[in-house]
Amino acid sequence: MSNPNLYQLLNPDSVAVIGVSRTEGSIGNTAIKNFVDGGFKGKVYGVNPRYQSVEGYPCYPSLADIPDSVDAVIIAVASHLVENAIHDCIAKKVKYVVIFSSGFAEKGAEGLQKQNEILALCQENGIRAVGPNTIGTYNLKNRILLSFTPLGRMEIVDGDVGVVCQSGATCITLLSTAMEENIGFNYGLTSGNQMDLTSLDFIDFLVEEEETNIIATYIEGVPDGKVLEEISKKALRKHKPIIILKAGRSEAGQRAALSHTASLTGSNEVFRMAAKSLGLTHVQEIEEMVDAIKAFRGRKRPKGNRVATVVISGATGIMLADKLAELDFDLIPLSSATQEKLFEEVPLYCSAANPVDIGQTLLYNPRLYKHCIETLVETEEVDMIVLHLPIGTNAGGLTFAQEIVDVSKTTDKPIIVITTGPERSIAEVRKFLTAHHIPAYSSIRSGAEAAKYLLDYERSYQKLLQTVENDTNSSLERHSLLKGTKSVTEPQVKKLLAQHNIPVPLGFVAKREDEIDKGLSNLKFPVAAKIVSEEITHKSDIGGVVLNIKNEAALREAFKTIMSNAESHDVSDKVDGVLIEEMVESPKQEMIVSIRKDPVFGPIILCGLGGIYVEIMKDVSQRLAPISEKEALEMLQELKCYPLLAGVRNGQIFDISELAKTLSSISKIAQSLEGPWEELEINPLVVLPKGEGVMALDGLITLSEEEGVTKLGTVNKK
Amino acid sequence: MSNPNLYQLLNPDSVAVIGVSRTEGSIGNTAIKNFVDGGFKGKVYGVNPRYQSVEGYPCYPSLADIPDSVDAVIIAVASHLVENAIHDCIAKKVKYVVIFSSGFAEKGAEGLQKQNEILALCQENGIRAVGPNTIGTYNLKNRILLSFTPLGRMEIVDGDVGVVCQSGATCITLLSTAMEENIGFNYGLTSGNQMDLTSLDFIDFLVEEEETNIIATYIEGVPDGKVLEEISKKALRKHKPIIILKAGRSEAGQRAALSHTASLTGSNEVFRMAAKSLGLTHVQEIEEMVDAIKAFRGRKRPKGNRVATVVISGATGIMLADKLAELDFDLIPLSSATQEKLFEEVPLYCSAANPVDIGQTLLYNPRLYKHCIETLVETEEVDMIVLHLPIGTNAGGLTFAQEIVDVSKTTDKPIIVITTGPERSIAEVRKFLTAHHIPAYSSIRSGAEAAKYLLDYERSYQKLLQTVENDTNSSLERHSLLKGTKSVTEPQVKKLLAQHNIPVPLGFVAKREDEIDKGLSNLKFPVAAKIVSEEITHKSDIGGVVLNIKNEAALREAFKTIMSNAESHDVSDKVDGVLIEEMVESPKQEMIVSIRKDPVFGPIILCGLGGIYVEIMKDVSQRLAPISEKEALEMLQELKCYPLLAGVRNGQIFDISELAKTLSSISKIAQSLEGPWEELEINPLVVLPKGEGVMALDGLITLSEEEGVTKLGTVNKK
Repeated sequence: MSNPNLYQLLNPDSVAVIGVSRTEGSIGNTAIKNFVDGGFKGKVYGVNPRYQSVEGYPCYPSLADIPDSVDAVIIAVASHLVENAIHDCIAKKVKYVVIFSSGFAEKGAEGLQKQNEILALCQENGIRAVGPNTIGTYNLKNRILLSFTPLGRMEIVDGDVGVVCQSGATCITLLSTAMEENIGFNYGLTSGNQMDLTSLDFIDFLVEEEETNIIATYIEGVPDGKVLEEISKKALRKHKPIIILKAGRSEAGQRAALSHTASLTGSNEVFRMAAKSLGLTHVQEIEEMVDAIKAFRGRKRPKGNRVATVVISGATGIMLADKLAELDFDLIPLSSATQEKLFEEVPLYCSAANPVDIGQTLLYNPRLYKHCIETLVETEEVDMIVLHLPIGTNAGGLTFAQEIVDVSKTTDKPIIVITTGPERSIAEVRKFLTAHHIPAYSSIRSGAEAAKYLLDYERSYQKLLQTVENDTNSSLERHSLLKGTKSVTEPQVKKLLAQHNIPVPLGFVAKREDEIDKGLSNLKFPVAAKIVSEEITHKSDIGGVVLNIKNEAALREAFKTIMSNAESHDVSDKVDGVLIEEMVESPKQEMIVSIRKDPVFGPIILCGLGGIYVEIMKDVSQRLAPISEKEALEMLQELKCYPLLAGVRNGQIFDISELAKTLSSISKIAQSLEGPWEELEINPLVVLPKGEGVMALDGLITLSEEEGVTKLGTVNKK
Repeated sequence: MSNPNLYQLLNPDSVAVIGVSRTEGSIGNTAIKNFVDGGFKGKVYGVNPRYQSVEGYPCYPSLADIPDSVDAVIIAVASHLVENAIHDCIAKKVKYVVIFSSGFAEKGAEGLQKQNEILALCQENGIRAVGPNTIGTYNLKNRILLSFTPLGRMEIVDGDVGVVCQSGATCITLLSTAMEENIGFNYGLTSGNQMDLTSLDFIDFLVEEEETNIIATYIEGVPDGKVLEEISKKALRKHKPIIILKAGRSEAGQRAALSHTASLTGSNEVFRMAAKSLGLTHVQEIEEMVDAIKAFRGRKRPKGNRVATVVISGATGIMLADKLAELDFDLIPLSSATQEKLFEEVPLYCSAANPVDIGQTLLYNPRLYKHCIETLVETEEVDMIVLHLPIGTNAGGLTFAQEIVDVSKTTDKPIIVITTGPERSIAEVRKFLTAHHIPAYSSIRSGAEAAKYLLDYERSYQKLLQTVENDTNSSLERHSLLKGTKSVTEPQVKKLLAQHNIPVPLGFVAKREDEIDKGLSNLKFPVAAKIVSEEITHKSDIGGVVLNIKNEAALREAFKTIMSNAESHDVSDKVDGVLIEEMVESPKQEMIVSIRKDPVFGPIILCGLGGIYVEIMKDVSQRLAPISEKEALEMLQELKCYPLLAGVRNGQIFDISELAKTLSSISKIAQSLEGPWEELEINPLVVLPKGEGVMALDGLITLSEEEGVTKLGTVNKK
């Protein structure tokens, strides 16, 4: 991944605006006016032959005329003039350009070509570019905007949240909506068509940037899944949450994304899985993003999922309990000691069980609220506290809010507040809390989901730290098995599996009938006989498979039948022999396991129970490969049909620990394969009774070729 | 269902307040002050020995002292004084009481007993009661509050929405939140512990009330599912949407509900299914309720799910497309004719495909927005329009809003608006739209979900109108099979099934070996032999089942074996014979079908594929019984494993139409059964290949007894 010093772009000493204008409200005017409004301390130049100066800054006919060097250039001209502007930048040895102009890749093939030409120019001359089709970058901390959105109209709240958006409008909506809620930001970086610098470059910058603690990003496509993986792991190690909204999860949305920022959005299912694996906080709406930012701004970490709530209305208590339960929280009944403590202050007529329902009592004894919060902060029984505060400014809501702030300072336990009621009476209370870094929401759903963001993030943090460390230790020899091969036979796939310690049936390939004798000495009947050929895809179709062969005579018979079938199908010259293998006679469950190359995220491992479970019920589990044994076990436990492996009722218990170990081994094959492979499918991988292990009965590798994708290998029809 | 003239309660000519007070802000003071504030035209009396008058109304030492008759009495005294107050009301021949007092059923067994005593008093003397533990009733249309919430502080917006809430606080939150958004209400009715008058009585009143067009209700428990069913169907016929929020869907929520309004909440899964069947708009949060009310206030009906969107930002277009697609909308690409029409006004640089993305162009050509809306209103290609309007009041948002209002007046097509941006700049635009009955929302999610509420409601309306008409024609003879029975044998269950035209295997019961001969004349081998006994639950366990009997000799042998097994298990005196039945040899799929009595909604039919599909994968479909054949088919299509019936790949196609017909027949059995039955389970109901029908291989009826539930009948172990 490119790693330019983005700091310099965002903090230039000198800037020029090509296409500067004196027309108020125009793009070329706002862009330069932003330096006045921001009190920019560096040098600013306009470039436009019509003016001598604009907004108090000197203006030159061309970039070349500027007497000094220029760090960053804003290009605010029509798309057909951009190429010339880049040439001027090259001549001036400019390092960074920000290209506002639209009319490139988002406009189809012709625009894409134009964009590629400009990109090549930049790359050849060491220029890093933002855009095109972008509103530019905001360094809010230092009030430096390389953007045509007016700084003068923004009410900036300073903070430690950095934003990366592919879409400018979304960046503006997010910042303005969130700052109205007293959430502070330091950067707003929009990547537009991300011809050169992508959203991932910006995210990476924010992960490294010391004063950024939370990263929120809107993307349409992931430029490189592996890079996102690296960045995510780094962010997790630094305990910096990344909140990600990826648009284009539907077909209709994908169509729209292509015409917006020319993004190919990738598979939504894979992204969802990847986000979860990588500890990203995955949201679907701007509102959810704001909610998640609020949650993380609290900087408190839940130790577990035990939550207590204090409510002023019984109905709210029920609805809140419903929502929290739905999100996997444990609304534990409080111990009698804690309940007594809660009752201490006032003899409650209400319930202290959990929800702690203090009802109208609050109005007669204002101390009660704080007492409840303090009690719940002190007890070891709960990991998080969710408070209901439906009390507006006119009824003393700010006083209660101050109490929450005070108590929160004494604890590491997350406290989340739900402030319901008419916006005019409750908004100020909510914003007061947010200003003091207490996550506060105007709906039960938002509040409960915020708690869930925190919980999920902490769980990912704990889990992934281990995984990250494990993975760095794993290094495998590379297999050149696929180098130069045109296709892969079943014995070759099985050899590969065996090299990775994945059990395959005992067997051998007999090219002639007289070779059977020798090979058989190690095998037990019954055996299976399967034709081996680089060119025959569907072996059963040509009578190339015989199963359940009970003795040597029958095997010889089977060999002859297979060979004569090949002859009558006119393929006998392409036959490499017959694979003879022991058959598995134990009770077994059949699994389908595959690794495929996702165009965005690389190798992905999938597993499910064979047959209708995968095909009809779509009961599958996926992860980014490689995975550890522990992760493999989690994958299996996610399957709805997991009880069929673990032993339902009095049924067979299968060898789940060997299966998990094997899944982990399979997941590592991808790292070691070289060549044009698309997918490795093991179908079936049979799981034997506990203690007896697993076995790959058949393997198929799909290769990609120039003329599309060819499936080769075998399918074991039984 | 009780059907009192609630109109009189809500529009009394004379009222008295027992427990009236002069202390400002107290319950007894606010209750009477509300009549002053509402300009009440009837007579008002206080009851309190300490005063001669309160708030300008005469006050008497006791109810008996009031010189005139009193229609409705508000009881605002401590719980231990309520009984006396009721006695006074009886003496005064009062028709209605509203009991604010808490400390009854919501406080456990003792409180429940007290409440039951008061209820008995009321019932014996023809008094209808609201509460206890209620904030009372609001007739907002006429400003008559029988409540202790202060009318003086409410900013009432008049309208056609009626609210029924079990919880007073929720009623207040809903009304105040919604009225701030310019949504108008006519009634707010809270039922509290609903000792006598329940939320269903109130809903029924609003369904009948001519000026109410939308009903919104918060409930914790459904007092009677059958009554809710009747009311729902009536409301649907009148095309009055009922929006329902049922709290207590989680275990934690259910615990909380019990201590709040003493509600048993019932099964959430059943409620969800019932709400869907009955055309109720089922929401889970107050915010969603407000969103749904807004949607229905538009009074426009979508003809289908084809939706077009107009957006100002590409990213919003993508996110909106994603959300709409997720909710089953069809974001059709617009025809080239329509796209040209859209482009007519201005040569667009943006996309007109759908989302119609007009981007910044809007700011230079304000006419464009209206032109787009008009074009989409005119085209037959779309059923609904969702507009993005992120333009605040300062940028002319109200002008655009007025255009939307103008165009909306010319069409029956629903138009939904999403107004994103900072609340301070966008709130007025949104509220302007709402005031003009245009559904407007501040998030993509809310807007898209609103569209979904409308679509689902219209679909229910179209569908249920047919069903409702069909159902009224169905009347069945009642079976007394279960009258007085202590248990049910397999042959009895099968006889019942056969009477309902559900095919069962050909067979007979042989009590003695010499009866086999005669019965066999009609049967084909192979047959099954199963012990028949009222007392033997697990036939296989005692060796009471023999399958796959190929000829008469083997059958005689089987008969003897079964009888001798019974003897060795010491149950031979309880045996009623052996059931001998033909076995099904065709390919088949096994279904599990059951009808069970839900405590709230009555008979519910469930179906799923037998074995692991139901047990492990939980792949089942349920409906309120009875169902039509069409509904039965829908149930089957909802199953994930439906392809196994419909013929997956080259697999067998089963007799789905006979299965649907049979499910409908089974669903009607419940209506005809009398006696203490709990559940009828047919397991398996085998489905044969297309054209060959279905067959019930075994049937089990579970009876309830005083000492719990006893399972009787048979389980066919194969």
